[in-house]
Amino acid sequence: MPRFALKIEYDGAPFVGWQRQKELPSVQGAIEAALAKLEPRDHTIAAAGRTDAGVHGLGQVAHCDMDKDWSPDRLAGALNHHLRPNPVAIVACAQVADDWHARFSAVERRYLFRLVTRRAPLVLERGKVWQIGHSLDAKAMQAGADRLLGRHDFTTFRSSICQADSPLRTLDELRVEAVTRQDGAREVNFHVRARSFLHNQVRSFVGTLERVGAGAWSPDDVATALEARDRAACGPVCPPHGLYLAGVSYPHDPFNGA
Amino acid sequence: MPRFALKIEYDGAPFVGWQRQKELPSVQGAIEAALAKLEPRDHTIAAAGRTDAGVHGLGQVAHCDMDKDWSPDRLAGALNHHLRPNPVAIVACAQVADDWHARFSAVERRYLFRLVTRRAPLVLERGKVWQIGHSLDAKAMQAGADRLLGRHDFTTFRSSICQADSPLRTLDELRVEAVTRQDGAREVNFHVRARSFLHNQVRSFVGTLERVGAGAWSPDDVATALEARDRAACGPVCPPHGLYLAGVSYPHDPFNGA
Repeated sequence: MPRFALKIEYDGAPFVGWQRQKELPSVQGAIEAALAKLEPRDHTIAAAGRTDAGVHGLGQVAHCDMDKDWSPDRLAGALNHHLRPNPVAIVACAQVADDWHARFSAVERRYLFRLVTRRAPLVLERGKVWQIGHSLDAKAMQAGADRLLGRHDFTTFRSSICQADSPLRTLDELRVEAVTRQDGAREVNFHVRARSFLHNQVRSFVGTLERVGAGAWSPDDVATALEARDRAACGPVCPPHGLYLAGVSYPHDPFNGA
Repeated sequence: MPRFALKIEYDGAPFVGWQRQKELPSVQGAIEAALAKLEPRDHTIAAAGRTDAGVHGLGQVAHCDMDKDWSPDRLAGALNHHLRPNPVAIVACAQVADDWHARFSAVERRYLFRLVTRRAPLVLERGKVWQIGHSLDAKAMQAGADRLLGRHDFTTFRSSICQADSPLRTLDELRVEAVTRQDGAREVNFHVRARSFLHNQVRSFVGTLERVGAGAWSPDDVATALEARDRAACGPVCPPHGLYLAGVSYPHDPFNGA
């Protein structure tokens, strides 16, 4: 059975999340239903990151096993045809080795979180960014973010229902990029990078750093919260719709040249 | 009656266009309904540009006459409250002179058209860009665009139902900007600027220039089409959903400092 890696873009709004749930619309379920149109049987695909309800995919990666020797381009095209009108697209496809695994072979995940500070509703980007009405101090947010870098017990910043065996993770990047937009509003983009993440870790980071940007917390309060290793010490978890799984890295990029 | 200028952002997708039509959802109708919540009576607002169905607004400008002396900030906030859940937002509001007119005082309109060349469906920007599957020669498109600059009879590039008295217009800018996106796809942005436009003029330009970019037309063919002064000489009119009314200029910016 040839195995294929799929790079996937999706709008998380209409879905209960990546993971298949009986009777409820999921990204995984939509792709598996499209696969069943091509090869009628049960399909189960595995993804690098199981995004929550409302979280978007820019560069999610999954793999599927097929009976036929599809050309990667034809497989992507046929899947995109059957995925309509779901807001899910296969943006790249490549054949990989039988033991290649979208989740277990991954060595890095990258997330993007988009936040815009503007009073008037963002009607053209509805559901695509977290909008707040007050201004933020980006320098203070970066100072707070710097306290989280490196290897730590991130118990404070993981959901109480997180199923990971260990709360230890190594945060490789948490960059706060503030830009002025065409409409004059300020946009803050959080670029977050690690080998793997705990459940709700990025949204816990961003919600806490927003408090720093608003002046309610100091950067040192972030370090204190981290050291507490206590979920109750976390700032408010921010909403999901500004969050994007931006990309996944593997020892060898399966899509290079695809 | 104090008069107020409104800068308006909207997603054109759910509307039959700017202009009010009985029983059908329009941007004008949505704003007039919101005004009637604030001051219960009939309201009629005038806009700088009457955008078609599916065309978006980034910096549309309109004016309204109120009975009460609203503070501009409160008026914008109250309108945004009553506009929900319509994808229409008042992004700026300023009091203007009684003889100031959003349409007749305007001295320049600016449009943006977004085109993306990618095979896989653009699910996160659905309805926000014109997507095509083949690559485009941006230099050739700019060469074609340059043939359209200046004062001309634009009969070729205006809708057969255009109600303007004269087909003469002066095109001040038609800039073709090609960029490589994060997803690796190419995006072509058309920046178009004139004192005023004919009906479907921008979409006629972009549809024709796409033919140049694809190699089906030469840049000189654009000049020939212009000189024909014949609607039948125009290339295909492109779809509306990549088009944005980006901004409107006045002798004195009413929103400066607002």
